[in-house]
Formats: sequence, structure tokens, C-alpha cells
Amino acid sequence: MTRAGLHGLLVTHLSDLRYLSGFTGSSAALALTGRAARLFTDGRYIAQAAEEVNVKAAQVQIVSSSPAVAAVQWLAAQSGVEFAGFDPARTTVAELTRWKAALPSHLRRSFLSALAAPLVEPLRWVKDEEELAIMTEAALLGCSLFDHILGFLRPGLKEFEVAAEMEHQARLLGAEGMSFETIVASGVRSALPHGRATSAPLPRRGFLTLDFGVILKGYCSDMTRTVYLGTPKANERNAYQAVLEAQEAGVAAVSAGVRCEEVDEAARGVLRRAGLAEAFSHSTGHGVGLEIHESPRIGAGQTTRLLPGMVVTIEPGIYLAGQFGIRIEDMVAVTRTGGQVLTPAPKALIEL
Amino acid sequence: MTRAGLHGLLVTHLSDLRYLSGFTGSSAALALTGRAARLFTDGRYIAQAAEEVNVKAAQVQIVSSSPAVAAVQWLAAQSGVEFAGFDPARTTVAELTRWKAALPSHLRRSFLSALAAPLVEPLRWVKDEEELAIMTEAALLGCSLFDHILGFLRPGLKEFEVAAEMEHQARLLGAEGMSFETIVASGVRSALPHGRATSAPLPRRGFLTLDFGVILKGYCSDMTRTVYLGTPKANERNAYQAVLEAQEAGVAAVSAGVRCEEVDEAARGVLRRAGLAEAFSHSTGHGVGLEIHESPRIGAGQTTRLLPGMVVTIEPGIYLAGQFGIRIEDMVAVTRTGGQVLTPAPKALIEL
Repeated sequence: MTRAGLHGLLVTHLSDLRYLSGFTGSSAALALTGRAARLFTDGRYIAQAAEEVNVKAAQVQIVSSSPAVAAVQWLAAQSGVEFAGFDPARTTVAELTRWKAALPSHLRRSFLSALAAPLVEPLRWVKDEEELAIMTEAALLGCSLFDHILGFLRPGLKEFEVAAEMEHQARLLGAEGMSFETIVASGVRSALPHGRATSAPLPRRGFLTLDFGVILKGYCSDMTRTVYLGTPKANERNAYQAVLEAQEAGVAAVSAGVRCEEVDEAARGVLRRAGLAEAFSHSTGHGVGLEIHESPRIGAGQTTRLLPGMVVTIEPGIYLAGQFGIRIEDMVAVTRTGGQVLTPAPKALIEL
Repeated sequence: MTRAGLHGLLVTHLSDLRYLSGFTGSSAALALTGRAARLFTDGRYIAQAAEEVNVKAAQVQIVSSSPAVAAVQWLAAQSGVEFAGFDPARTTVAELTRWKAALPSHLRRSFLSALAAPLVEPLRWVKDEEELAIMTEAALLGCSLFDHILGFLRPGLKEFEVAAEMEHQARLLGAEGMSFETIVASGVRSALPHGRATSAPLPRRGFLTLDFGVILKGYCSDMTRTVYLGTPKANERNAYQAVLEAQEAGVAAVSAGVRCEEVDEAARGVLRRAGLAEAFSHSTGHGVGLEIHESPRIGAGQTTRLLPGMVVTIEPGIYLAGQFGIRIEDMVAVTRTGGQVLTPAPKALIEL
């Protein structure tokens, strides 16, 4: 805050707020000054806020109107606080209008200041030991789901039955939920990078892509494996091999100090040389943590350098419309000297 | 658009975009003029957009940069389009800055205009026959989950095992997923209005609140039932009866033309007269549809009048910290002469 020239900070993005205060409710705002922190929430969360928010982290105040408006007004009433920052990427135009209207008229123009760069999110990008331990546990839970589902898959099963089995197992293993809508895409549907589970039956012969993640203690896991039902043709086997090599090249490129675009290029180059550049229609990966998609983005033109403690996905894929698709994804923790794969499930082509 | 004095409209909120175009991907923008509609999305969605978007609804354009920026630039390039609206409640301050920067400099000041009121969302608040049929199906699926879980509940079962069973069953019955994180709150935890399922075991004696919903063809269901494990004490039975009467009074107050605050007061008044006004710490309900929380809000001071075809929840509850909580919730479709309950699961106190 001091470096950004601010006396106060308004935090409304729920993941940021959870990171700073421990509060996990769905409606809250956190106001910070150099001296104090106050969390505003509504009457539904009286008991939960008392349970979750350490009194050293923030004082809790229950309000009957908008928590963010109350937080802005509280900041403006603190002595010595002449400017407070807000995150323009997490604030709607309508919210900003409402906050300004709630300020005394002489403060409307000058008090709220859009941050030039986010202040809280970058703290979240680098995970500490406790966070890495939770994320490792979440990632391993994902691996055990994959192992479990291998014994369940058979032709004719509907895609959503596969998703149901995985999600049920995840819950029984202690997951709070799934970190995104489980992707189960079989046969020609595997060519849809984001194919949600449908009532389509698993084919006797064809690829099956499973992209899934769990939430454990608030943290997300994310992994993808593509398996084959039956025996693949030579071109399918070759395509799988190319994606696997690209994915491994991406993982091998991960290290502190490396630019994200270099990791992307390590994976993309393999597919380009295999004549599959066009079929790889998305970025190589993204950060993951309290949210399923965080910075940094592992993509072309991304010059951000990886830092030790970041956790990113490496997930190249190819999509041939009307034919098939293949994607392989690991979560990788960045270390000083390389990358630690958090999702050590088998990647050699599994034929079922 | 014409009434709002606009030549063009930018739609970026995904539920609005889905409503207008049929597209269900996670990254897209829709640009509308009096003559044309164009949907911008990225390479991951080539096949999906071709499958989902009717050519009469919109022309699809795949872009490698931001879909919203591409949409703004396309709008600005259409002849006769001098102003385009955007929804300030669905646009971040950072997005607006980016969009303006992507416009030719002479258009930056004047081209993009914040809508005074949303244009697409109000279309969604009132459901047509096809939507009501889907929402009825989703609501009945929710009822069958409740029926299923009654045969599964027993003391000692962990709350998350209850959630797992409900979610698994939902998937097997064809739900695409849950419409929000399933709430399973037992014993003293029932006093948390938003108590997520934990590893706490169901008690031998105490209330159990189940608040859950499914997604079916994109539409959300939402219902709550509170049951009792064991035999309730007289004060618990009386409290339940008060909430039930409040809920039924709320349902009975639903009708086209009625103000939302009147429905809220119908429920709230019952609890006030029972001396439980303080314990009812939230609004009576909310609209539901493609999103789990839509307008209108059924709360104090809400003067919006109900329209036929709106679907709202009626969900009064009481929360006595350290003791227990009770909530009962139905989905109700507004008709010309009253309200049609879409969730006809039993509401008399069930003792297990």
C-alpha cells in the first residue's frame, strides 16, 4: 500500500479477501489501512465470520446494506486516509458509481483510486509451504480419482455417468466440490476442448478425455488425461505421442526465472514440428490456487517470469474437428531449479 | 435498443449471451446492431459454437485476442453505429478502459455508453413456456433428490457424505451439475444460513438443513428442506411451525402485480409475530433461472412488481446461534392469479 502511494485499500474479490482474512462467505468486503483491518459482511454470516476470521486478521462488522459501500464509507472516515485503492479488474463500472455516490461529495473525485496493478493477487500467485502442502494433497486426490475411474470405464457408459462417479468419489475422499464442471468428452466429442459430460455413450473405439479438478480446503486441483477405448490406429497413436512429447517438453521447461512464453514455446514447438500447430488452439497453461484460473498465463507473448512457489498447469492439446482430440495436463509447482509435478498419474497411452 | 437511444449493444455477460444466442462456452462477446448480430469467441470453441449458435441468431467469428475487444471494434466499424451500450453491472472498470483504448481516438469519449438499466437481463426474468417446462423439470429433479436422501440419512453419517449422495444421484438423473455448493448443515451447524457440508457427523437428535439445486439444460433449481433427526423438543417444533407458516404465507402472497416487498412482509410478519424477527437475517427470496440468483429480490423495500412468468424462491429461515436453524424454500412460478409451486416436496416436519 505504501509503495502504491495509498493510505487504504478496499478488497472485494472473494478469493483475495479469503486469502487475507480466512473468511469464506459469499458476500463481504475488507477495508485495510496502515493501522487496521475491518471485514464487512451481512447477517447470514454472523456465526461463520466469528468462526473463520482471526481477530488479529480483521475486526468483523455485520451490516444490513452493501458490505462494499460500508467498507468505502469506513475507509473515508478513518483519520489520515485520503486515498484508498480498489482493483479495477474486480470492480464493475456500476459498483464504482455506487461507491462514489456513497462518499461525501468533496471526496467523490479523489478518494477512490484504481490500482495500476493488483496488490493482493500477486501475493496469491506464489504459494507458501502450507498452501503447497494443501495443493499437493488436492492434486493427489485428483490422481486417485483418475485411478478409480479407470476401473469403471466401459463402452456404452454415458459420459455423465463417468462424471457422476468421479464427483461422488471426490466427495467421499473429502473434496469440498469440483473446481470446475467435469469434462468427459469421448469419441468425436474429444475434439471439443471444453466438452462437458453429455448423455453420449462411450464408444467401443476412440479417445476419451477426462479434465477434472477438486477443491480441498479452498484450493483447486486441475488435471487432464486422455485414454483410448479399444486399440488406436497408427495415426491416433502418433498424435497421442506428439501431445505427450509436447506436454513433457512444457513440464521440462518450467523453472524459476523462465518466461511463460518460453514454456509455451517448448510445448508448442513440438506440436509445430509434428505439423499440429493449427490443432493446438489454446494456451499451454495457467496458474492455479484458490481459483481454478489464476495468473500467470503460460502462452505466446507472456513475458512474466516464473517464481518459486507458483503452481501452473501444463496442458497442451490438439483438436481435429470431426475426428478426435487429445489433451494431457499436469499441475507443476515451480522450484528454484525446475518444476515439481504434483499430479504423478500415468501419462503413457492407456488402452482400455 | 431503439428505446434506449442506442445503435448497437455489446453483450458480455455469459448468461445474457447464452439467452440470446444459445452459446454456452466460457469466453465470448456478442455484438448487436439493428441489422446484424455477431458472436466472438476463441479457438477452443470453434466446434461448439458451430453446434450451438443458430446462424439466424448470430454469425460466429473466431478471434485469437479478446472477444470483447473484437466485438467493440466490430461495432465501431459498422456504418450508422455511433453509440453502443454496455451493461455497467457486468463490466469491470479495467475492461472498459481496455475497450476504450481499442477504439479509434475520436470515438473513445462518446462511443460506449453505460446502460441506465440492463436491457437483456429483464428479458430473462420472465420465463416463456419452454423455459418454464425446463425449470419445472429441474425443480422436480430436486424434489426426487430430497425423496432419495430421506432413505439415506442416519445419525453418524458425515455431512459431506450426504452431499456426495445427493450430487451423485443428481448426475444419474441427468443433471449437468449442481447450481451451487450443496448446503448440508446439521445440529448447531444448522444455525449457519450458508453452512457447507463438512465432516461433522449427523447428530442423533437435531435439525438438518438441506439446501441444494441442480442445473438442467442450463437452468437452475433451488430448494431447501429442514428435517429432524430424532424427536424434537416443544420449542424446536414451535420454531419449525413458525417458519413453515411464514413460508406458506410468502408463497400465498405471490401473484402478478404484487410488489416484492409485500411478499417479503407476508413471510416476515409471521416470524415477527412469533418473536423471531431478529433470527430471520436475510431476504425472503430471489429470482432464479439461467443463474441461481437473479432479480427480482424478494426483500424489504423492494418495490418491483411480480410479472407472470417470473420464477422466484420463497425461503424464510431462522438462525439461533449455538442452538439451531431452520429454513424452508420453494421455487414458485408467478401466474396471473397467484403462484405455482414448482417444488412440491413435503414441508410438514419430517422426524427421522
